[in-house]
Amino acid sequence: VRRTHFLPLAELHYEIDRRVPPALIISSGDVVVIETEDAFSGQIRKAGDRRDKRLLPNSNPVSGPIFVEGAEPGDALEVQIVRIDPLIDQCSTYLWPHPHVQSHLGHRVEHVTRICPIRDGRVIWSENRSLPYAPMIGVVATAPAIGVPTTLPPGDYGGNMDLRELAPGTTLWLPVEVAGALLFVGDCHAAQGNGEPSGVALEMPARVTLRLRVDKAKHLAGPRFRTKRDLGAVATAPNLNEAVGLAYARLARWLEADFDWDRWEAYSFLTQCGDLSLGYLVYGIAAAKVKRSYVDASR
Amino acid sequence: VRRTHFLPLAELHYEIDRRVPPALIISSGDVVVIETEDAFSGQIRKAGDRRDKRLLPNSNPVSGPIFVEGAEPGDALEVQIVRIDPLIDQCSTYLWPHPHVQSHLGHRVEHVTRICPIRDGRVIWSENRSLPYAPMIGVVATAPAIGVPTTLPPGDYGGNMDLRELAPGTTLWLPVEVAGALLFVGDCHAAQGNGEPSGVALEMPARVTLRLRVDKAKHLAGPRFRTKRDLGAVATAPNLNEAVGLAYARLARWLEADFDWDRWEAYSFLTQCGDLSLGYLVYGIAAAKVKRSYVDASR
Amino acid sequence: VRRTHFLPLAELHYEIDRRVPPALIISSGDVVVIETEDAFSGQIRKAGDRRDKRLLPNSNPVSGPIFVEGAEPGDALEVQIVRIDPLIDQCSTYLWPHPHVQSHLGHRVEHVTRICPIRDGRVIWSENRSLPYAPMIGVVATAPAIGVPTTLPPGDYGGNMDLRELAPGTTLWLPVEVAGALLFVGDCHAAQGNGEPSGVALEMPARVTLRLRVDKAKHLAGPRFRTKRDLGAVATAPNLNEAVGLAYARLARWLEADFDWDRWEAYSFLTQCGDLSLGYLVYGIAAAKVKRSYVDASR
Amino acid sequence: VRRTHFLPLAELHYEIDRRVPPALIISSGDVVVIETEDAFSGQIRKAGDRRDKRLLPNSNPVSGPIFVEGAEPGDALEVQIVRIDPLIDQCSTYLWPHPHVQSHLGHRVEHVTRICPIRDGRVIWSENRSLPYAPMIGVVATAPAIGVPTTLPPGDYGGNMDLRELAPGTTLWLPVEVAGALLFVGDCHAAQGNGEPSGVALEMPARVTLRLRVDKAKHLAGPRFRTKRDLGAVATAPNLNEAVGLAYARLARWLEADFDWDRWEAYSFLTQCGDLSLGYLVYGIAAAKVKRSYVDASR
Repeated sequence: VRRTHFLPLAELHYEIDRRVPPALIISSGDVVVIETEDAFSGQIRKAGDRRDKRLLPNSNPVSGPIFVEGAEPGDALEVQIVRIDPLIDQCSTYLWPHPHVQSHLGHRVEHVTRICPIRDGRVIWSENRSLPYAPMIGVVATAPAIGVPTTLPPGDYGGNMDLRELAPGTTLWLPVEVAGALLFVGDCHAAQGNGEPSGVALEMPARVTLRLRVDKAKHLAGPRFRTKRDLGAVATAPNLNEAVGLAYARLARWLEADFDWDRWEAYSFLTQCGDLSLGYLVYGIAAAKVKRSYVDASR
Repeated sequence: VRRTHFLPLAELHYEIDRRVPPALIISSGDVVVIETEDAFSGQIRKAGDRRDKRLLPNSNPVSGPIFVEGAEPGDALEVQIVRIDPLIDQCSTYLWPHPHVQSHLGHRVEHVTRICPIRDGRVIWSENRSLPYAPMIGVVATAPAIGVPTTLPPGDYGGNMDLRELAPGTTLWLPVEVAGALLFVGDCHAAQGNGEPSGVALEMPARVTLRLRVDKAKHLAGPRFRTKRDLGAVATAPNLNEAVGLAYARLARWLEADFDWDRWEAYSFLTQCGDLSLGYLVYGIAAAKVKRSYVDASR
Repeated sequence: VRRTHFLPLAELHYEIDRRVPPALIISSGDVVVIETEDAFSGQIRKAGDRRDKRLLPNSNPVSGPIFVEGAEPGDALEVQIVRIDPLIDQCSTYLWPHPHVQSHLGHRVEHVTRICPIRDGRVIWSENRSLPYAPMIGVVATAPAIGVPTTLPPGDYGGNMDLRELAPGTTLWLPVEVAGALLFVGDCHAAQGNGEPSGVALEMPARVTLRLRVDKAKHLAGPRFRTKRDLGAVATAPNLNEAVGLAYARLARWLEADFDWDRWEAYSFLTQCGDLSLGYLVYGIAAAKVKRSYVDASR
Repeated sequence: VRRTHFLPLAELHYEIDRRVPPALIISSGDVVVIETEDAFSGQIRKAGDRRDKRLLPNSNPVSGPIFVEGAEPGDALEVQIVRIDPLIDQCSTYLWPHPHVQSHLGHRVEHVTRICPIRDGRVIWSENRSLPYAPMIGVVATAPAIGVPTTLPPGDYGGNMDLRELAPGTTLWLPVEVAGALLFVGDCHAAQGNGEPSGVALEMPARVTLRLRVDKAKHLAGPRFRTKRDLGAVATAPNLNEAVGLAYARLARWLEADFDWDRWEAYSFLTQCGDLSLGYLVYGIAAAKVKRSYVDASR
């Protein structure tokens, strides 16, 4: 019997910490509905609000952790992303004067916030401009066995990946490093561009529905995902050049392990037809993707 | 009257050199049909051939230059890509042991070449696997006023960009730095993935049909393009992190200059819906893109 | 009354963790004598020993933490390095096949360990080659308020800095982010080159004598130090290019804050006479230095 | 018979160009006295002068080239730096708002120039502050066989290395890629710090005395030097992390080739006692150094 659990918005975490007691204990295969706060911890809700880092220095609060019974170090945690719904029918963003923004655009970067209603499947940017509502999870992580990462730079445990593919319909696999896996989730976006250039997407508090399952057969170096169209392998590194190369290599090794490719032929083949998705451009995080129809030669 | 010129395969260049006498002198608006050699200078044509860098150390030979009458420093050269046809109905690739490939995949990387026929709009990878023929130009450049770049790392003059968008139907603009612009073209690919991870695409000798026009109104910091769907701005930097940020900033400034956006709002908007295309991942080259339908608010 | 405390080798930590109960509680101004294990946790002690990461995946164990009474967030912890003595009159090193070593030197990098006696102020490398004993602390850190870093990449809290200046006679200042500062120390080297190219110095278990004092007047962005000759400011970043620039900027701001310089003049002056020290070259860590005699104009 | 040649200040070059006719033809072993302009092409000579890049966009003009008879591709050019004398008893500098300077120091970076007299072996910075006159060559290069680099980023041909070791008493070896080697020299500094953080040293027009000799026995991947104390190997790469590692590897291979070391032992040994010198921190250029007394075990 598959059960559904609900985790209401409660204590927020800014660390992916194996020592936090579980907020929820579930069985492999259960569904969880998790409420998440936005990346600003709710500081920007109406016109004139500002992101005040003196009051609240940390970003990207996460809900959790969720303990999945049976998950052991060396396993993978399968995360099926079922739904992502806005909690308050709006999202918000602002531009902050990160040095790279300043050197490109000039130094008069103002702290301007923007509130965008979400309605009829659209995010309303301004009177005459809107975007499709394309929700995704910014931060999703299992707790690593050593170190306690913050919810800023991502790593092999997942974390602040900011990849558009982490959307409803996608199945994500994360490495399990501690008993129970300890899943943390937060930082949902109503829409986000590739590379998230300003570092601030259309941030929203959300209700996230996931189905979690322990996979004893996969042994992962880092996150992987499957969308309707693609397989994707994620890698982080000190810079994008290395992350992109490593992501493609992990994808080639996935094709070797599960689809009977030679890894070098796979790398050469991906050179001809692979695709990429990047997280926040200041980090070194990339996902390398390939169409599922290309992977299986019988198709 | 628009004329069509033909530049057959003749002397090959491995430098983007303002001192090379024009191979062709044309008027603004004329069409040129250019034959180009493949990236290996034809060393890999049949099974068992190898890329031998002792005999031929340089890569990516280009044809040209083409002198466009009326082009002056400060102008832009508009390059409409009309057609890209294979010269010999095949393309080829190989995997070479670049350090980044070795550190990811292991050290037994062999020098294996692969010849792929092109037929019925497909590139035949193997008996049971093929890809759509998706031709693009790897190297397209105007001559810079200082320095003579090789056909390896790209720059603001264009060069070895390896971007999939440089395909039939796309209009590219390049900065003009010397009288006549001096266009060089080569290194066509029958298909290529985003980021070209191994650095060796499906390389082919090709017949490239371009319409070239001098644009006196655009003053460019680097290449720009327009596809059926997108506008794109290209940037190069020592690494991908900087290139991606700069490409988005150039796109934001384009929206400011030509479409009446505020540059900071544009940067924030692109954060929500922009897309990326990368050249060879060892370089720092990126194109930031946005749907044309998003740029014009009246749509 | 200044007291001296002794912290014998006991539990080792691989994390800089604010939640670890103090191993020692001291007053500001007290002296501590700390025993530290080597970077290999003692796995390499005699000919034929190997670094076995399956048994012991983590590196650079630290002793501590030491709680200094009166230290509050926003203060600095002054660490006077009084002595560093080998615990067993030998140090050891080995070469491991890091990808950057392999791509430069070839792929037959063997796992060769080397045991070097320390005697008469020399480290004996081989029968006919020795180096001066030049001890330094590899890892020295205060606990950060958010996140729990491992003892691998360094940060503004210090950590695995691997800077040769952290030697007897040097005074180091570290930011205090939690009550008591919580100092961790380990990974001593009998000698180390600038940039530590292989990542493995002459590692030794050691007895470290420090005098610790709370400094309420300094508010630090990152570590600083004073040697007999120099002032130095430390910075970490994703890469060395950024770390070197930031380290110089922090030094310029130190001259501004404490020595009445204009920060821009200071930056220009440091361009003419500054010096650099790097930690492990795979990280982005640098110290920018200037002769103390240059800083005070009256000299 | 060793002859001395004089090359007065005449045509300046901003490119390292194999196609420029020799300004001087000499025999191997001859001495040359070369006048060089400063990095600003003389734009900053008195109080109130400014570096105006609209009038003169290029930097670091070089004198030359000097054709050394008998130099063939594959040889090395030995450059003994005999003397570097100021042409006008002063040097100058300024601070420009490079993005990395702005993001570290703030955005009000003004364009302030400074003229520093050189007298009695000192550079007079201000009324009460001076530095030792420590002259060096900023740009020294042989012409490469492909591409024509500008006098900005350095490469394996040398170029704008900005290394403090390129000073009187040092012998430098550069790869020869074209007949006659074609040496270019310019951009002398009266003093410079390690990493040249602002990118603008104490720039001076100078009279440089060199002895040039063809070395048929050395086959170099990049520049090398020998100072009174050290051997040094230079490397360039897209970033400093890679340049530092490659420089050490080149030094290890030098010890292998000329001093009978095992390359891996050498790399491990350099890890314990090597030193570093960096050029302008925005580039990826480093020299790895080792004391000559350490290299020869008999000492």
